[in-house]
Amino acid sequence: MTRPCNDSFLRALLKEPTAYTPIWLMRQAGRYLPEYCETRRRAGSFLQLCKVPALACEVTLQPLARYDLDAAILFSDILTIPDAMGLGLYFTDGEGPRFERPLREEWAIRDLTAPDPWDHLRYVTDAVAEIRRALNNSVPLIGFSGSPYTLACYMVEGGASGDYRRIKSMLYDRPDLLHHILSVTSDAVSAYLNAQIESGAQAVMIFDSWGGSLSAAAYQEFSLAYLRRIVDGLIRERSGERVPSIVFTKGGGLWLEAIADVGCDAIGLDWTIDIGEARRRVGHRVALQGNLDPAVLFASPERIACEAGKVLDSYGLHDSGHVFNLGHGISQFTPPEHVAALVDAVHSHSRLQRGKSA
Amino acid sequence: MTRPCNDSFLRALLKEPTAYTPIWLMRQAGRYLPEYCETRRRAGSFLQLCKVPALACEVTLQPLARYDLDAAILFSDILTIPDAMGLGLYFTDGEGPRFERPLREEWAIRDLTAPDPWDHLRYVTDAVAEIRRALNNSVPLIGFSGSPYTLACYMVEGGASGDYRRIKSMLYDRPDLLHHILSVTSDAVSAYLNAQIESGAQAVMIFDSWGGSLSAAAYQEFSLAYLRRIVDGLIRERSGERVPSIVFTKGGGLWLEAIADVGCDAIGLDWTIDIGEARRRVGHRVALQGNLDPAVLFASPERIACEAGKVLDSYGLHDSGHVFNLGHGISQFTPPEHVAALVDAVHSHSRLQRGKSA
Repeated sequence: MTRPCNDSFLRALLKEPTAYTPIWLMRQAGRYLPEYCETRRRAGSFLQLCKVPALACEVTLQPLARYDLDAAILFSDILTIPDAMGLGLYFTDGEGPRFERPLREEWAIRDLTAPDPWDHLRYVTDAVAEIRRALNNSVPLIGFSGSPYTLACYMVEGGASGDYRRIKSMLYDRPDLLHHILSVTSDAVSAYLNAQIESGAQAVMIFDSWGGSLSAAAYQEFSLAYLRRIVDGLIRERSGERVPSIVFTKGGGLWLEAIADVGCDAIGLDWTIDIGEARRRVGHRVALQGNLDPAVLFASPERIACEAGKVLDSYGLHDSGHVFNLGHGISQFTPPEHVAALVDAVHSHSRLQRGKSA
Repeated sequence: MTRPCNDSFLRALLKEPTAYTPIWLMRQAGRYLPEYCETRRRAGSFLQLCKVPALACEVTLQPLARYDLDAAILFSDILTIPDAMGLGLYFTDGEGPRFERPLREEWAIRDLTAPDPWDHLRYVTDAVAEIRRALNNSVPLIGFSGSPYTLACYMVEGGASGDYRRIKSMLYDRPDLLHHILSVTSDAVSAYLNAQIESGAQAVMIFDSWGGSLSAAAYQEFSLAYLRRIVDGLIRERSGERVPSIVFTKGGGLWLEAIADVGCDAIGLDWTIDIGEARRRVGHRVALQGNLDPAVLFASPERIACEAGKVLDSYGLHDSGHVFNLGHGISQFTPPEHVAALVDAVHSHSRLQRGKSA
């Protein structure tokens, strides 16, 4: 197997030189795109979009048809694993994802088992394979999973939470129970990501969306330790190509050095940290992905170009090691034409930078 | 005027030695206390509690009757200033504070003026004076305000927000308008805090609850610059006693050095940063206030004592410069007896520490 025609994303993650800074956007296949809303309407529900590989493939490709993006990311939900564990995922209007059977009783926690991704999550591996065929080696495909702690938050709280009261009560009062959940979930995430890699994912990203709600010590014990375990167990190479991994803890700017130490190839950054400072702190151990405030996309195209330029300039005149992204998923209220302005600005500004540094 | 009988809180802020580490809790007069709920029921509404000095005084004192706390904090709402500016504050069940007239039109922004605290916010200065009389110099009274950026968030969004879409659109597209709002609001906050000091507040705290949602550069320009301006304009001494100031940016752990530079006496810390690391980063320039995860209070008294001890140990064997607090307001779901366990643990553990360091 060869690298895709546009391999700038993989090269940047592996710290190989690139002609420009590659860009993709978290949640790039999403509600801000009218064609996505149309497919979703046709599908009947968000979960159908995830569970029918042809539909997941269709929406994965939509942003690539519009924009000159340098990577595709599997369209799926972050909660497929707990759903496969039997918690009963469903969606409510306005409240987001919920579980019919949140994980709160000790017996249920002790009964928890990691699902076989080739069986209960076959719709995901099938989608990965179908998307790879459809991409036809144009750009790389990113697979992903939620982090164990983030999945556990949803599983224990029963949905999104404002104060994480239930899981934090467990964390402080019954850490043994929480460690059991995290351990089983880590096994599940490892198997899930490796199944995605074997199905064709060329890089993987772990979204630790709620790790940033922990104290520094609790983050190390209840999130980072499991991120390390997963990264350790990832398939590192497939068909002769390295499969890079990205770890993204939203709100994790204080802990970058520790995240860099888990062995991932890249760290995702939210927009609260200056990327130049992040670079100085972690040095060249890892690549960095980020980190424009998604709210910049509400501004004018000129201002978007200006703010994107500031991120690139802060990263500095290096010809590799940076994948441009937002610091969080793109908002559903983003005007689609503003995304084109961002992609063009990142490509053109970074080409100019390469000229200066040469 | 002399210092209160228990001046440990003021001494710690001023980096003078204390026999133990003083403690108070953000939102210590709140819904977790049955007596608070009773007074609120009697008052008819939350706003009445704030607007009738006798009621504000009553609830301010309630936690001090129960616990051995080392400071009282004025009971009031963070949004009194925008209300006095004419935006029409009201409260909805479940959705929190809202404004009848959010600040979105350019003409309304240009019309904005800073209210005279002795006129439109007289109910606050009266409450401060009444609470001081009732405290009878037992412990110091803290006055407070929201930060300009945090107030502007509510004013522009019209209430709490998940994505700060409106204010960030303004920030990136019409920074001139946002700077105008922030400038007027800074004048209002300065006058408001100084009026509280003149009415008897012995320390002041500025709550920058939403500054942490900004990028590093935007934080400097749109929040920190105005915090500096306010601290610069504070009355520093009253009746021969220094009036210390505390700046708390939730999610501001990345920016501690910059916050220390605004000239405040202390920095409030949320629970995501290790307080020992914070101490190493800012040195002895400022005192630190914090920073237990409020969720620890859901755990058993033994575990609460253990986690409080970890914060004290991480701060280290210094006999001053630390005011113990939570890293955020106390949850309404906190069992009241757990607060007693925390207060006792902090006092006894820190007395033991002093013994060791002597």
